[in-house]
Amino acid sequence: MTKLIYEGKAKKIFETTNPDQLLMEYKDSLTAFNALKKGEFSGKGKLNCQISTLLFKLLSKNKIPHHWVSTQNQNQMVVLKTKIIPLEVVIRNYVAGSLAKKLGIEEGRKLNAPLVELYYKDDALADPFVSDDQAFEFGWVQKDQLSQMKTLALSINQILTSNFAEVELRLIDFKLEFGLNKSGHIVLADEISPDCMRLWDMQTNEKLDKDRFRRDLGNVQQAYEQVLQRIERIQI
Amino acid sequence: MTKLIYEGKAKKIFETTNPDQLLMEYKDSLTAFNALKKGEFSGKGKLNCQISTLLFKLLSKNKIPHHWVSTQNQNQMVVLKTKIIPLEVVIRNYVAGSLAKKLGIEEGRKLNAPLVELYYKDDALADPFVSDDQAFEFGWVQKDQLSQMKTLALSINQILTSNFAEVELRLIDFKLEFGLNKSGHIVLADEISPDCMRLWDMQTNEKLDKDRFRRDLGNVQQAYEQVLQRIERIQI
Repeated sequence: MTKLIYEGKAKKIFETTNPDQLLMEYKDSLTAFNALKKGEFSGKGKLNCQISTLLFKLLSKNKIPHHWVSTQNQNQMVVLKTKIIPLEVVIRNYVAGSLAKKLGIEEGRKLNAPLVELYYKDDALADPFVSDDQAFEFGWVQKDQLSQMKTLALSINQILTSNFAEVELRLIDFKLEFGLNKSGHIVLADEISPDCMRLWDMQTNEKLDKDRFRRDLGNVQQAYEQVLQRIERIQI
Repeated sequence: MTKLIYEGKAKKIFETTNPDQLLMEYKDSLTAFNALKKGEFSGKGKLNCQISTLLFKLLSKNKIPHHWVSTQNQNQMVVLKTKIIPLEVVIRNYVAGSLAKKLGIEEGRKLNAPLVELYYKDDALADPFVSDDQAFEFGWVQKDQLSQMKTLALSINQILTSNFAEVELRLIDFKLEFGLNKSGHIVLADEISPDCMRLWDMQTNEKLDKDRFRRDLGNVQQAYEQVLQRIERIQI
C-alpha cells in the first residue's frame, strides 16, 4: 500500500506512483454534527464510491471539470491532486437542515431560485457560514475563482436535478468542494454522495440520505443502496 | 403623551400629531445577548440620544439621507416615519465580537478593507447572519436597495472613522438600520450610539461601548459619558 497522507471523517487519501494523482478511499464510517455523532455500516464506503463514480461520469459527459480519473476497485478512486479551496459550497433548491433551523422555516419549501451558500472548512470552528466578502477578506478564495465556482455549482445543480428527476429523486440540497489543478484551473473535487446531499423520493418525500443517520430514522444502508440502484438507471 | 406604538429593548416609539413623523424615546435599559442579560443606568437614554443627535447632524453635513428631524428634549427625538428594512447592516474595520469568535481570530486585527455583513432582524431567531442571496430570496430587500445601503454604510463608515480619529476614538465596528421614506428612498434609521458600535480609545485600546456591560468590565456609564464628551469636541 502506498503512503497515507490524510485521513478525514469519511475518506483516506493515499499517494500514488503518479505525482499528479492521489488515491481516495471511501470509509464505512458515518459522522454527523461535526463528528459528535458517529456510526458506520459495512459497505457504505463502497456505495458512496460507486455513486460518486457514476455522478462524476455524468458530469464528465456534461463538460464539468472535475478531479475524478478512474475507479480502482469497490471503494477506491484515483483523482487528480488539487489544491483544495477551503470553502464548502452548498446549493439549495428547497429549504432544509441548517437553513430551516436558522430561519424558522418548515423543511421542504421550494426556493424561488437555487441558493448558493459558503461555509469555511474548519472542523475546529465547526465550518461556519460565511459571506463572499469574508471569503475574499481572509484570502480563502479570489473573486474570479468564486465566480467560476458558483457558475459551476449552478450548472452541476441543473445536471443533477434533471437527471435525478428521471429516477424519482428530488435534489433538496448538496455540498461541493473545489480545488485548483496543476494549471491553476478550478475543478470539482471531493465526492458526490448521499453523505453530502439531501435526496427525497419524489412521490413520498422519504429521505434517502445521511439525514436517516443524523436523525435516527433507521434504514440508513437501505437508503444508500436505493440511491445507487436509482442512479444506475440514469443514462450516463 | 401621544400613543405608544412600539416598545423595543432600548427605545419606545410614539405617534406624533404629524402623520409622517414619530417620536423616539431612548430608554435607560441596557440589554445584551438577545436580552438574556439586562441592566440599566440612570441617564443612559439621555446620553445615547445626545450622541445620536450629534452624529445625525454630522451625517447631515455630509449629505447622508437619514430619518432624524429634531431632538425634543434630553432623551427624545423626532424622526421620519419609515418602513424599516429587516436587516442589521454591520460594518467592521477591525475583527471583534462575533466575527472573532466565529473565525477564532484575536480581537483587534485590522481588516484589509471594511467588511459589510447582514443580519436578519428577528429576535426569536436571535438575528442570524445571512448572505445577500438569502436576503433577496426571502424578500427582505431588493438588489438595488441593498446596493444603496452598502454604499451608504461605507460612506458613513468613512465619515465616522475620520471624525472619531480626531477625538482619539477608534471605530472598530458598528450596526446600522435603514428604512424607506414615504417617497420609497433609502434613509438611515434607528440610532448611532455606543449601544451599537465598538469604540476603543486610540491610545490605550480601552473599550468605550456596550462591551463594558456585555463583558462586566465596569464603568459603563463613565464610558458612555466619555464618548459624548469626545464627540462634542468634533466640529459639526
